[in-house]
Amino acid sequence: MKLVPYLPADIPARGCFTLPTEAGKDDLVRDLAAKWGADTIRDSDGTELSPELLELGFEIFSTVLLTRADQAFAKAHPEFLIRKFFRSDEVLAETDTVTIRPMAGFDPRKYRTDTYNNPQHHWQVFDRATGLEHPLGRWDYDPATDTVTVRNAVPWHPYTVNFLVEQIWDSTSMHNHLTNGWTSDPIMSVDPAHPACFAHLMAWFDRWLAEHPRTDVVRLTTLCYHFPIDGAADGHTRYFDGQGYADTVSLPLMESFADEHGFRLTSGDFVNEGRYIANSHVVPSGRQRLWMDHVHKFVVRFGKALCDRIHAAGKKAAIFWGDHWIGMEPYLPSFQEMGIDIHINACEGGVVLRRCAEAPGNQIKELRFYPYLFPDTFNHEGGQPLRDSRLFWANVRRALVRTPVDRIGYGGYLSLAAEFPEFVDHVAHLADEFRTILATTRGTRSERIPVKVGILSAWGARRSWIPFEGRDQKFAIPYSDNMFLLARSYLLECLAGLPVDVEFLSFDDIANGVPADIGVLINDGDAGTAHSGGRHWADPAVLAAVRKFVHRGGGFIGVREPSAYPAGGRNFQLADVLGVDLETGDTANLRPVASWTATPDHFLLAGGLAPFFGTDRSYVAPVLTDTRVLATGPGGHVLAAARGCGKGRAVYFAGLPATADNAALLLRAIAWGGRAEQALGRWHCSNPRTECAWFPEVGKLIVLNNSPECQTTTVLDGDGQPFEVALAPYESRWYAHQPD
Amino acid sequence: MKLVPYLPADIPARGCFTLPTEAGKDDLVRDLAAKWGADTIRDSDGTELSPELLELGFEIFSTVLLTRADQAFAKAHPEFLIRKFFRSDEVLAETDTVTIRPMAGFDPRKYRTDTYNNPQHHWQVFDRATGLEHPLGRWDYDPATDTVTVRNAVPWHPYTVNFLVEQIWDSTSMHNHLTNGWTSDPIMSVDPAHPACFAHLMAWFDRWLAEHPRTDVVRLTTLCYHFPIDGAADGHTRYFDGQGYADTVSLPLMESFADEHGFRLTSGDFVNEGRYIANSHVVPSGRQRLWMDHVHKFVVRFGKALCDRIHAAGKKAAIFWGDHWIGMEPYLPSFQEMGIDIHINACEGGVVLRRCAEAPGNQIKELRFYPYLFPDTFNHEGGQPLRDSRLFWANVRRALVRTPVDRIGYGGYLSLAAEFPEFVDHVAHLADEFRTILATTRGTRSERIPVKVGILSAWGARRSWIPFEGRDQKFAIPYSDNMFLLARSYLLECLAGLPVDVEFLSFDDIANGVPADIGVLINDGDAGTAHSGGRHWADPAVLAAVRKFVHRGGGFIGVREPSAYPAGGRNFQLADVLGVDLETGDTANLRPVASWTATPDHFLLAGGLAPFFGTDRSYVAPVLTDTRVLATGPGGHVLAAARGCGKGRAVYFAGLPATADNAALLLRAIAWGGRAEQALGRWHCSNPRTECAWFPEVGKLIVLNNSPECQTTTVLDGDGQPFEVALAPYESRWYAHQPD
Repeated sequence: MKLVPYLPADIPARGCFTLPTEAGKDDLVRDLAAKWGADTIRDSDGTELSPELLELGFEIFSTVLLTRADQAFAKAHPEFLIRKFFRSDEVLAETDTVTIRPMAGFDPRKYRTDTYNNPQHHWQVFDRATGLEHPLGRWDYDPATDTVTVRNAVPWHPYTVNFLVEQIWDSTSMHNHLTNGWTSDPIMSVDPAHPACFAHLMAWFDRWLAEHPRTDVVRLTTLCYHFPIDGAADGHTRYFDGQGYADTVSLPLMESFADEHGFRLTSGDFVNEGRYIANSHVVPSGRQRLWMDHVHKFVVRFGKALCDRIHAAGKKAAIFWGDHWIGMEPYLPSFQEMGIDIHINACEGGVVLRRCAEAPGNQIKELRFYPYLFPDTFNHEGGQPLRDSRLFWANVRRALVRTPVDRIGYGGYLSLAAEFPEFVDHVAHLADEFRTILATTRGTRSERIPVKVGILSAWGARRSWIPFEGRDQKFAIPYSDNMFLLARSYLLECLAGLPVDVEFLSFDDIANGVPADIGVLINDGDAGTAHSGGRHWADPAVLAAVRKFVHRGGGFIGVREPSAYPAGGRNFQLADVLGVDLETGDTANLRPVASWTATPDHFLLAGGLAPFFGTDRSYVAPVLTDTRVLATGPGGHVLAAARGCGKGRAVYFAGLPATADNAALLLRAIAWGGRAEQALGRWHCSNPRTECAWFPEVGKLIVLNNSPECQTTTVLDGDGQPFEVALAPYESRWYAHQPD
Repeated sequence: MKLVPYLPADIPARGCFTLPTEAGKDDLVRDLAAKWGADTIRDSDGTELSPELLELGFEIFSTVLLTRADQAFAKAHPEFLIRKFFRSDEVLAETDTVTIRPMAGFDPRKYRTDTYNNPQHHWQVFDRATGLEHPLGRWDYDPATDTVTVRNAVPWHPYTVNFLVEQIWDSTSMHNHLTNGWTSDPIMSVDPAHPACFAHLMAWFDRWLAEHPRTDVVRLTTLCYHFPIDGAADGHTRYFDGQGYADTVSLPLMESFADEHGFRLTSGDFVNEGRYIANSHVVPSGRQRLWMDHVHKFVVRFGKALCDRIHAAGKKAAIFWGDHWIGMEPYLPSFQEMGIDIHINACEGGVVLRRCAEAPGNQIKELRFYPYLFPDTFNHEGGQPLRDSRLFWANVRRALVRTPVDRIGYGGYLSLAAEFPEFVDHVAHLADEFRTILATTRGTRSERIPVKVGILSAWGARRSWIPFEGRDQKFAIPYSDNMFLLARSYLLECLAGLPVDVEFLSFDDIANGVPADIGVLINDGDAGTAHSGGRHWADPAVLAAVRKFVHRGGGFIGVREPSAYPAGGRNFQLADVLGVDLETGDTANLRPVASWTATPDHFLLAGGLAPFFGTDRSYVAPVLTDTRVLATGPGGHVLAAARGCGKGRAVYFAGLPATADNAALLLRAIAWGGRAEQALGRWHCSNPRTECAWFPEVGKLIVLNNSPECQTTTVLDGDGQPFEVALAPYESRWYAHQPD
């Protein structure tokens, strides 16, 4: 196969780029718009476009976040403020009376006790030694002192109260105020599930649309419910969940839920023993799923009402997949009912790119890049916007050549960026590289290896491309520049740039059989979490389906604590497939395999890979003598293993933080698990810090250096013929197929 | 206080020492008996004392292990052989029929399928995907092929069979045969719970007693049930539990149990999902406890029948606390009913010393030291008997000065020891040092700090001083010479040499209140194990008792995963006491404490201690802002923390392997937890590799160097006045109080 160096031609200097504006900096806007090739400008949070800018011929994005748009209305109607249930910090009973100050642990700038709704109807007191609710009538709330008095308590039992608060400072507003040093009033959000509130917001929006004739695209900074960021009394964030439903405590929705389902959710459903509802890490209960669906239905109704108005006004609707996005659920088919035209996602790497790019529907997909042009990076000692952006872009680019998006852009203050001329030049280069990829590949897909990956978790498709960092989230260690910066995203970040198709599957999706097009199933997560699957691994149908799949020729890659559920004398329910099991202590007497040492001479580790498993203490040991242990930590903790299983194959990794070598290892594991090792004999780079993508429909190859150093790599072409490529730091290089 | 160097005088050159003999080596026996000061000789396993040795005036110990004494009887009565239930390795159903070869995973030299008792009455087949028993009538056993055929199986479900085997090679006999290269016939044990077997053994024993008039002490190599050492098909040990009841599967006892309790135990009770009954690590169920008590009752009856005969013959009864000791339960009061005169324990460190020394009753306590004079150390490449013994003795000695034993001794082949003259000299020195301690302290107790420690576990006193290594057992890393060799014993080995009184408590013992004399409770173990406590931590009475104890002034030291039970949003149920909790993944969104860094300036870490917590990834984080984090691993994993809690104090350690610094740290933690810091201001050594013991009744102080290097240490005398001591490797040095 003849490949020749190719210099992309006819690349437009402008387009597919959205620029934020900044009040009073029209010259700078014009200058950077030219340098970065912007075709679209938008107002930032808290700014309005100047008349001058409106005249410059850009397409105009205007931001509106309806639920916090009318502050006078929010102030006048505290009954409509967003609410949430908190569980108070616990208080130990030393006698039979306990006094709890519910708000003691929470940020009074952000929340105040809801005294509008009757505490006796909504709140619950719990004895935390027994887990039982303390009976109504044995506790009182005194609004004057904001305290709960619990009577008939059992001495030396701790007590908590689940209580309702009003949110008096919107989470994003608070973050932006504190990050940017804003001094304006705190902004509050209202809950449109109140019919009167819904009506008011629609009327307000009708006016807004009429007042913004020059706006081409209305950018909804999402819809109505924010993901939870709970502030502690000392101001720190005590709870954060980018996907949680803890801020959807809408009393009208609770009423309609009770009407529809015939039972009522309680504070306990929302508090969920302090983990809160729809917590990313927690295997969701049936009641939680019903609530999520109920909220989603309302959010779709609200979003459709907005989109209908936007379209009626002759404009397009864009949605920023962030902030108040809870309930939106873009991967559910019902999301399409809203009528959104453009998806925008804040993006720092491959996982977010693929989340946005692969979301179902015909929306235009746009990425808003990190670092935001915000003081936390640009005006902060030690902030390195250029270094960060180069790393982010390398992560994004390797995923972009697998699944393209339509547009990119930035948010924040241009004046901050302007102080970093090298950053400005780098963004110009990045935007050009982006437009080059779009123009050269013409929207065609790059080649995949013939193994489709199914990621198995309790969430399934609903939370496609949501990272699952797990327990390490609390103990994150900064990674060095030589790894991908996004190491915290683990396996998914590795996967995002690999030439494989990926589908996210729930346990329901496989209980009647793994879908026929799946070649390799991956289950990656900490024991008991939604990502590993928890109690779903007690379901015999799930176990039978996976066993059948593997024995009939499928691949299974288990990472961290796959199929973990303690039952029947096992911790990994698929120990018989993986050939390894987790030791939690009570099987320490058992040693099914006499002794083991790592033998790395295996297809998975060929090519001198230096994988990093994130730990050297997995507490995993082989349980079958035919398990090939590939890597161990001191004491024999298994870090990597592989085995044949019936006609299929199984692989275990103790963890796969996102590093270049781990991405290469994962690709090898997918190919091996899917019995498609030969697929790595073409369109493949020898050096794990480099990757390539072949676009067969246009006959073009791109070779990427993902690293900040020069790299040399051997590329195998479509015939498996090798050729050498030397690349500058982060360079991408094109080749074209020359027909004979 | 005036202390002067003291040279112990009037130390007997002979006594308190038991020497093994060796057939045909009478000269060597005489020589080593003189060098080591033996006053007693005994036959080793498989040897008989020669007439010449019997004439030398030693007290004579003769070993008898009744249940394997009469091999002709055992061969003639396979129905009396020791039995056990195994769970077969699992077989995956690929159709609706599965064939299982039960013995496939097990050593055919050691076990054979029991075809004497009807499989349909005793065996059980399980579907391991559902955990349910597969109905009788849907499986058959074919003795001709030794296979089980399961019909009506669910495809892709794994199946196992619990089946009964006869043990055709006694565990200790097999070990000794293989270790020593013996070629004699395998020895089998019989079960005296069969009345006819019991009667036969008693008649045999009566004859034996009549034939051994010169024997002074009958040394029972325990009683009837061995601890489990399960051999795999390839010969390796697939299960080992020094305390387990898996080899007590006595059909007569199962019958009498059913008669007594009105319900029948099944194979499932013994197999216990592959963990087997009374597994040290597993929180015992009520059914398991009843079985243990039932076996114990029989063992006491059997032992009493022997002791009565021994005493009637004018001899003393010694018991070797090893091999067939299961059911003996020396820490239960009912053990005393047997009438044992001498306890012998195989000992390599402080934990075993204290286990033996502190066992209730007036028995003479004797230690049989490691290394055994066996080829595995003395005739093995890399074997270092001298180095090992010096380390072992240092570990034993620091415990010995806290609680004395009466005698020491060896087992094995003297001819092996004789090839190591330095070892022979070292034992002579060790024996002299032992006799010096006994003679100088005259059986008096050394001073304790005024804080009694309670070790809290699911086993309590019944398993006092049984180490709880936990899950690390499977992944043990060899420790360097500079640590105690017994690092695998963890905290208990540290504790064994500390000047504190110790009691072992079960959760029942504290549920109505922690005993008034306890100053500090320690809970050390992996989550879910018997040592941590598992489901006992779901008992509100237990939690209330500990909370009350600490809040009223007690101390609580939690190590590894203390009070671990996942409920109510916590993993450590006493997170409110400890101020830290374990992150298992589903609370990764929660961050009750903003950030934390270790601040080691605390009483616990004073004096430049260099503790080793056995891990740097505890997944433990602070949950209360008043928690003092003392040490962390990368990413903030908490390795040590302390806090005040009410009037009491709590300490957390991620682990305390037995090192010198950890022993010193544990003492500081006990003193701090018990609010007795001032107690370390006297009779205390500054250098953690040295320790001292003050014997107030005789006015003598001993200072120990526990390390293989020279050490200098500052000793605080009874008035807190410091003085310097320089010690040679492993040296001990005496001081006497000189009254003014």
